[in-house]
Amino acid sequence: MGRRYDTITFLSDYGLVDEFVGVVKSVIRSIAPGVAVIDLTHEIEPHDVRGASLTLARSAQYLAAGVVLAVVDPGVGTERRAVAIEVGGGESVLVGPDNGLLAAAVSMVGGADRAVSLTNPQYQLAAPGPTFAGRDIFAPAAAHLCNGVELSELGDPIDPNTLRPGLLPVTREEDGALVSEVLWVDRFGNAQLNVDPDELDGWGDRIRLRFADDIRVAVRADNYAALRTGEVGLVVDSYGLVSIAVDRGSAAGQLGLHPGDLVTLESLEAPLTLRARAEPEADR
Amino acid sequence: MGRRYDTITFLSDYGLVDEFVGVVKSVIRSIAPGVAVIDLTHEIEPHDVRGASLTLARSAQYLAAGVVLAVVDPGVGTERRAVAIEVGGGESVLVGPDNGLLAAAVSMVGGADRAVSLTNPQYQLAAPGPTFAGRDIFAPAAAHLCNGVELSELGDPIDPNTLRPGLLPVTREEDGALVSEVLWVDRFGNAQLNVDPDELDGWGDRIRLRFADDIRVAVRADNYAALRTGEVGLVVDSYGLVSIAVDRGSAAGQLGLHPGDLVTLESLEAPLTLRARAEPEADR
Amino acid sequence: MGRRYDTITFLSDYGLVDEFVGVVKSVIRSIAPGVAVIDLTHEIEPHDVRGASLTLARSAQYLAAGVVLAVVDPGVGTERRAVAIEVGGGESVLVGPDNGLLAAAVSMVGGADRAVSLTNPQYQLAAPGPTFAGRDIFAPAAAHLCNGVELSELGDPIDPNTLRPGLLPVTREEDGALVSEVLWVDRFGNAQLNVDPDELDGWGDRIRLRFADDIRVAVRADNYAALRTGEVGLVVDSYGLVSIAVDRGSAAGQLGLHPGDLVTLESLEAPLTLRARAEPEADR
Repeated sequence: MGRRYDTITFLSDYGLVDEFVGVVKSVIRSIAPGVAVIDLTHEIEPHDVRGASLTLARSAQYLAAGVVLAVVDPGVGTERRAVAIEVGGGESVLVGPDNGLLAAAVSMVGGADRAVSLTNPQYQLAAPGPTFAGRDIFAPAAAHLCNGVELSELGDPIDPNTLRPGLLPVTREEDGALVSEVLWVDRFGNAQLNVDPDELDGWGDRIRLRFADDIRVAVRADNYAALRTGEVGLVVDSYGLVSIAVDRGSAAGQLGLHPGDLVTLESLEAPLTLRARAEPEADR
Repeated sequence: MGRRYDTITFLSDYGLVDEFVGVVKSVIRSIAPGVAVIDLTHEIEPHDVRGASLTLARSAQYLAAGVVLAVVDPGVGTERRAVAIEVGGGESVLVGPDNGLLAAAVSMVGGADRAVSLTNPQYQLAAPGPTFAGRDIFAPAAAHLCNGVELSELGDPIDPNTLRPGLLPVTREEDGALVSEVLWVDRFGNAQLNVDPDELDGWGDRIRLRFADDIRVAVRADNYAALRTGEVGLVVDSYGLVSIAVDRGSAAGQLGLHPGDLVTLESLEAPLTLRARAEPEADR
Repeated sequence: MGRRYDTITFLSDYGLVDEFVGVVKSVIRSIAPGVAVIDLTHEIEPHDVRGASLTLARSAQYLAAGVVLAVVDPGVGTERRAVAIEVGGGESVLVGPDNGLLAAAVSMVGGADRAVSLTNPQYQLAAPGPTFAGRDIFAPAAAHLCNGVELSELGDPIDPNTLRPGLLPVTREEDGALVSEVLWVDRFGNAQLNVDPDELDGWGDRIRLRFADDIRVAVRADNYAALRTGEVGLVVDSYGLVSIAVDRGSAAGQLGLHPGDLVTLESLEAPLTLRARAEPEADR
């Protein structure tokens, strides 16, 4: 017997209109009755592996120990592997398709200890069709893991190095400016950039943003409410990244920003800072 | 005392914006604290008894044993009966309005063993108004059943044969073609038909679809990803029915299909198959 | 040690698309594993403190004993206080921002026994940014309360009289008519007014509604289904308030009503009733 788990954190692109999420939970309840299922979100855009991967990465450090069940699976029914990945010395196991969805979260918690391909039909439901792997393959695997079934029982071992990597965009310097990308637009319209506040050290309080065909000046602020009406701000968000925000409104809506958009940042008060910081780095 | 249950599966048209679902769960928690509630869906279109009935029927075989609480109830406050229906030798009890909502699911699990009308006020909340039977009548009944209250305690016994039937559309043959109906359009845009794959035995790989004013040729495929871009496919879905699909797109959106629409299927490769198959059947 | 709780009822404006709700629940699960979290709703419009406050007030009498976690917090990161308020002799504790959100619910259950400002960092998460108080301050407070941490441990005591009041609109008489306000439009399009049915005693069955630029005659009915097609009705809703309704349609949609709109009611059958009723009241 393996370690037992009492919590499954569940993310998918199933939405809450159809019964998919409820059926998956019913399957889990039938196999592992005492386990709590926490919905991370099911409103990932259909097939948006990138968005789901970033959601998992943002959440990883806050999740209760246990099993993470993640299903955004445009390749369902094809030869893409279904996998379970053990991390943190067995503290958690991530279950889902091997399409890059789990990669960023696995990295966030220290990398994969070991992994299997979910090939053992003994731990699957007999399926009337090939298209609902969440119900027939992933949920049973998650539930059996909770019951103490050993990871190696679920299928063939695979080399963690063969797991499909995720794509986390990195910033780049360009003519003294920082070219960043919108990772996420949240419900409140804040546009999270892939920018660590350290990257803006010494840049001063006013920063020029260039994106698509527009140019705006943003001010750095400690929180949303510190912004004046109409003012565009740069706030360190609750995940520690720089986010474009306005007070009580949608920055992304006002500026027309979407996930994946490029935003170039330029210091207005110390235009040479970035280059100055970049040079010592070149010596390392 | 009756049998006890530890799971309530809950479906409604309450949506997740108002507090209806949360209040129903609070009522359940107050009466039967240890019971787990699994949300099947609450995003049934308001008053869509047909859609909800099909959702329950699709899910029935996967639900954990226990109580099913289903509330889509346009006749709330009128003389329509509130009922509880025992099925599977007591393995489950379905609770909801007697308006056809529960009928298909009851059939799927073998029919009603016995039923009562929820007329005993002792197991209801005193209501300030007549319009929230989910909170005041159905949820208390479900919770008390979980606590071991005997079905017969909840109200007057009724003859299961008097329960309002559901309407499950069946296919029909017409001039060698199969006239089917769209049962469901899921989040991914797949249009499930009321067609068993057996009905297409010997039809070959290419099938003509006629609907509204359009005609399209669909190819049969094992899964979504086996379809080429732009190709319309017929895939056996995860419930074992034939579904119209495209890869990584919405078939229903592209073809303008909605639940209830008629779709006529004709074999392009063996136009006489249906008639040939139909003749021996006439001998039975 | 204080009293222990096993239920957290959770309301927010986080929505269900982002992972906010799931992360808050993960934090709760990590601190207080055995506690059940009931979602009241998370689809409060962003920053709509008024709507959320009314939702809590409607629900208050139905909630299971325990902790109420409510987060609609446009002032996050500013000097607005984060508070926990004990009510009902310790039966429940409400946790949230001190911005009026909790006031109506606190009143509904008899007022605050005592309150604290959540200033003790020992019961908070170290936050990478100041903008997710639900995760970093409110959820940990709720979870620690469930574990039996004494209210006074969570921070500095505050005078309940200094808590920010809510604004519950009251009706007023004007030239023999009753000026009311739409409190809430529910999923089914019913428009709840801040009118107690007692206020319409003796008004007869037909009542004129004036709102914006329109005038309509409504009939009083026992339930939605008692209304004829196209007829506008006044029904006592499930919370005991007068609601504008149509059968199987959206009254608010048809009449263009939104929360906060004024609706003036006039009796068509006994135009003097209101004044007659008002006069004796003046003697009290």
